[in-house]
Amino acid sequence: MSDLALAVDIGGTKVAAALVTADGTVTERRVRPTAGSTDPEAVWRPVAALVSEVLAAAGTARVAGVGVGSAGPIHLPEGSISPVNIPAWRRFPLLGRMAELVPGVPVRLAGDGGCAAAGEHWRGAGQGVDDLLGIVVSTGVGGGLIQAGRLFCGPSGNAGHIGHMVVDLDGPPCPCGGCGCVEAMSSGPSMVAWALRAGWKAPVPAPAGQDLAAAARAGDPYAGEAFRRSGRALAAGIVSTAAICDLSRVVIGGGVAAAHDLLFPPLRAAIAEHGRLAFLRGLTVTTATLGNSAGLAGAAALILAPDTYAGRGVASST
Amino acid sequence: MSDLALAVDIGGTKVAAALVTADGTVTERRVRPTAGSTDPEAVWRPVAALVSEVLAAAGTARVAGVGVGSAGPIHLPEGSISPVNIPAWRRFPLLGRMAELVPGVPVRLAGDGGCAAAGEHWRGAGQGVDDLLGIVVSTGVGGGLIQAGRLFCGPSGNAGHIGHMVVDLDGPPCPCGGCGCVEAMSSGPSMVAWALRAGWKAPVPAPAGQDLAAAARAGDPYAGEAFRRSGRALAAGIVSTAAICDLSRVVIGGGVAAAHDLLFPPLRAAIAEHGRLAFLRGLTVTTATLGNSAGLAGAAALILAPDTYAGRGVASST
Repeated sequence: MSDLALAVDIGGTKVAAALVTADGTVTERRVRPTAGSTDPEAVWRPVAALVSEVLAAAGTARVAGVGVGSAGPIHLPEGSISPVNIPAWRRFPLLGRMAELVPGVPVRLAGDGGCAAAGEHWRGAGQGVDDLLGIVVSTGVGGGLIQAGRLFCGPSGNAGHIGHMVVDLDGPPCPCGGCGCVEAMSSGPSMVAWALRAGWKAPVPAPAGQDLAAAARAGDPYAGEAFRRSGRALAAGIVSTAAICDLSRVVIGGGVAAAHDLLFPPLRAAIAEHGRLAFLRGLTVTTATLGNSAGLAGAAALILAPDTYAGRGVASST
Repeated sequence: MSDLALAVDIGGTKVAAALVTADGTVTERRVRPTAGSTDPEAVWRPVAALVSEVLAAAGTARVAGVGVGSAGPIHLPEGSISPVNIPAWRRFPLLGRMAELVPGVPVRLAGDGGCAAAGEHWRGAGQGVDDLLGIVVSTGVGGGLIQAGRLFCGPSGNAGHIGHMVVDLDGPPCPCGGCGCVEAMSSGPSMVAWALRAGWKAPVPAPAGQDLAAAARAGDPYAGEAFRRSGRALAAGIVSTAAICDLSRVVIGGGVAAAHDLLFPPLRAAIAEHGRLAFLRGLTVTTATLGNSAGLAGAAALILAPDTYAGRGVASST
């Protein structure tokens, strides 16, 4: 069997595909924006084209299988998906379509938060850690759990949704329809929106997280407070996860976490403030090391290390 | 091997021991108040006497082992305990002492929240449910997780601490030293304290949860609001646990939950308000059925069904 996987990472804004070797090296990486169409087939076609391109780039090397990480929720056992940010896809049969596209090898599908955690555990900052929470703080806030050294996806495949843990009962509305979720305070868009409402004078009409970080570093009090709020909400989600799941390590990646000079001090202070029980005090929080390849690495691990990463909650074509 | 276990349940206010058969029947149940001494041996002696009494009551029947559920935190692998509410015991070597007291059979130790969840899963309201959160709402708020059909205690043995999940970042102080924890709003004492501060005129000088429930049923607005706050905080902890662990069932027991006519309506409303993602909507919440025997049944299950309940995170003498 080949030790080369074709990895696919499907998000609401972009789709990436690449070849990944057993040591976690990502090659032939290709990225396209996710099609904004309301037609499910129009969203699928460029994904299929991207996968075919990467497969062709493999040349004579045979891939061992296709690992897919996707924005969720996902539906088991059929492996369909209904990503919140891809409205054209509701129970879209992604696993089956991918298996038709790349016949003869296993295709496996898990949530993107789980794949990012798996990637960091397999070849990144979480190597050797048996009980790990991986978090991606970006347009949304996603996560995944490693428990007893293996990826834990839960019975429906949707475990790890730290973004929708409730940390402020009367907190702001969240894109999920609830309120007071981690994502409603810690995601990039929620931080920008809060800062603008509070009084931040943004330098551009539609500012991004990077603009907010630059303002915070320049001493803008609203921008700084947006990072403090984000760090505190994330800390509450982390403490809550550690209290219920008994973790030893948290690894944080994603665009917002790239501003770790701004995010980590309030985050660490709030973890110390809220996580007071003895078994919570050994918790360590570090930055992810795989950058935006974590999801691709984790998707590849579904194929290349299935005993560790492709258990319950991972959809499989075989 | 015998199918009779000696089960022990150690809490901050009382200690219980009993014989438990394979069908979950609890007999020879004996209860004593936990000694308030600062001397570890003075707390141990009545526990040892209780265990010896129950063992003697078994007569010629040989027990297969001793299962112990204890207030935590617990320390692995040695099986010592430092219960928050038994200050005399700090790293008290409970597993070893119990093994000396009842030699020749296995002794196993897990947290009381885990044992209560195990008991309800083994012979109570959680039978047949693969992914379950068991909660005990009483003097504190404890919990335990069943994942993929087995008790999940985590690497340090302390998983399931729903009482110390953070649901209100700026919430009231908690006995753990943090603030905004579920326990700080949902436990019996925190509800009574809040109602008294709010203006409840209690009928007795040191009112208990039952007094608060009676007042709420009689229409007292402060008492009613205390149950609403408790139910909402508990709901946030439940939604958060389901978001991160992907649960299908929650079973709630304990003294406060006995007033389910007062607790469950705000609890269910808040779960519906906060748990909006599709995979959270199937979550069902029911009352526990084993009453105050859940912990003893679960402790017995550590001995009588070890493949299911005595995995990682359970201390064992053998």
